[in-house]
Amino acid sequence: MLTLVLAESSIERVPKRLHRHPSVIAHARRRRKNPGLLILDRSYHHSAMRTSHDEDPPGAWGKHGRPDIAFHVLLQALGSPLNREGLLKTYVHTIEDRVIEIDPSARLPRNYDRFIGILEELYENQQVPTDQRPLLSMRKCTLRELLERLNPSTTVAFTTTGKLISMRNACAQMMGSGRPAAIIGGFAHSHFKQSTLKLADQVLSVDREALDAWMVTGRLIYEYECLLGLPDKRTRIP
Amino acid sequence: MLTLVLAESSIERVPKRLHRHPSVIAHARRRRKNPGLLILDRSYHHSAMRTSHDEDPPGAWGKHGRPDIAFHVLLQALGSPLNREGLLKTYVHTIEDRVIEIDPSARLPRNYDRFIGILEELYENQQVPTDQRPLLSMRKCTLRELLERLNPSTTVAFTTTGKLISMRNACAQMMGSGRPAAIIGGFAHSHFKQSTLKLADQVLSVDREALDAWMVTGRLIYEYECLLGLPDKRTRIP
Repeated sequence: MLTLVLAESSIERVPKRLHRHPSVIAHARRRRKNPGLLILDRSYHHSAMRTSHDEDPPGAWGKHGRPDIAFHVLLQALGSPLNREGLLKTYVHTIEDRVIEIDPSARLPRNYDRFIGILEELYENQQVPTDQRPLLSMRKCTLRELLERLNPSTTVAFTTTGKLISMRNACAQMMGSGRPAAIIGGFAHSHFKQSTLKLADQVLSVDREALDAWMVTGRLIYEYECLLGLPDKRTRIP
Repeated sequence: MLTLVLAESSIERVPKRLHRHPSVIAHARRRRKNPGLLILDRSYHHSAMRTSHDEDPPGAWGKHGRPDIAFHVLLQALGSPLNREGLLKTYVHTIEDRVIEIDPSARLPRNYDRFIGILEELYENQQVPTDQRPLLSMRKCTLRELLERLNPSTTVAFTTTGKLISMRNACAQMMGSGRPAAIIGGFAHSHFKQSTLKLADQVLSVDREALDAWMVTGRLIYEYECLLGLPDKRTRIP
């Protein structure tokens, strides 16, 4: 069983001080939503995020407005054979300390706008769907609280500042421990907080250049499957 | 060197007989484009595609309107270490026999709407950007013509109807031949045309269940990297 935690993910609602910016108002109109119900997205709110605000230090928005990263990561995770075999559990921790728990049987929309619609619904109702067993649910929770609850046998954070090691060797080390958790950053062009790194037993880097979070996710899951012998099992003729 | 061809991809403009459907008109208005300039997308034009047309047999739209597949596949391919090392060449062949050639140095937008904007531009100007060396270019070309021009040492098509084999073994076989090409389907819930299968030396399946095209792509590229020793090379401390 592998636990995947996308940590400090760039997912949040458009903060109040940006509600009156023209790019936010225009996007709200297109989506027929109140600005406060929108998910912050650099693709649509870039100019609002560039405007300087007295309360924001320079570069304060660097880690914000990239919900697409979680989208791509979840498509990698939920469609994998590891997940279909019930051997993967996926969580998305957000930059504002919320945790989205995803049922392994959830099938996400392949369309980005629809995925954003689901995030908007999660912020409104804390679960999706609302009328039956939730496939996605969200609650206030720090990364520390999540890991304390999950109590993995080892926790490995993947980041460019980590110790260089191939994914194959990283996975072999993780798997030796039984119930490992992997932490991957759900943001772009930035680094984990110190408080996140402190939660990891090991901090590793699987390439000398920065790789997209969804690429690290796909490779981690695939190597984990290989170590479990899944590819051979699933391609054996019955 | 690995050549990746996403074949029969669900990319095309909205066909003329759907231009007057309310869902197409509404979407055209939102994008401020003429309906004829839009890329067909099941997420937005679903009801137009469901409407029966005298000229369409039942299920005729099954393979259409999924440009998101190419988006996810290209994000996997272009960001990979294999591509960064100049060892991957990527082509997108469309269901209407156009071929999009992608410069390995192209960096695609991470936002789906912007990717669609690039496709729209490609249909209008045949290349992006128009004022300098193109990073993406499009021309009329069948899959057969493309493969004749590329002249790979072996061509392997990946599809659920193929011979079951693990990706590791499939890659080892392909690599033995020097300059292999891999064909992956750029559509959902459907199969390659017979004319496509005939172009392949081998037809393989890497899982007993259907995997998303981007997952097959990611695994293929990663295994190819492993066989080349790239992960070790790229995680060695200099």
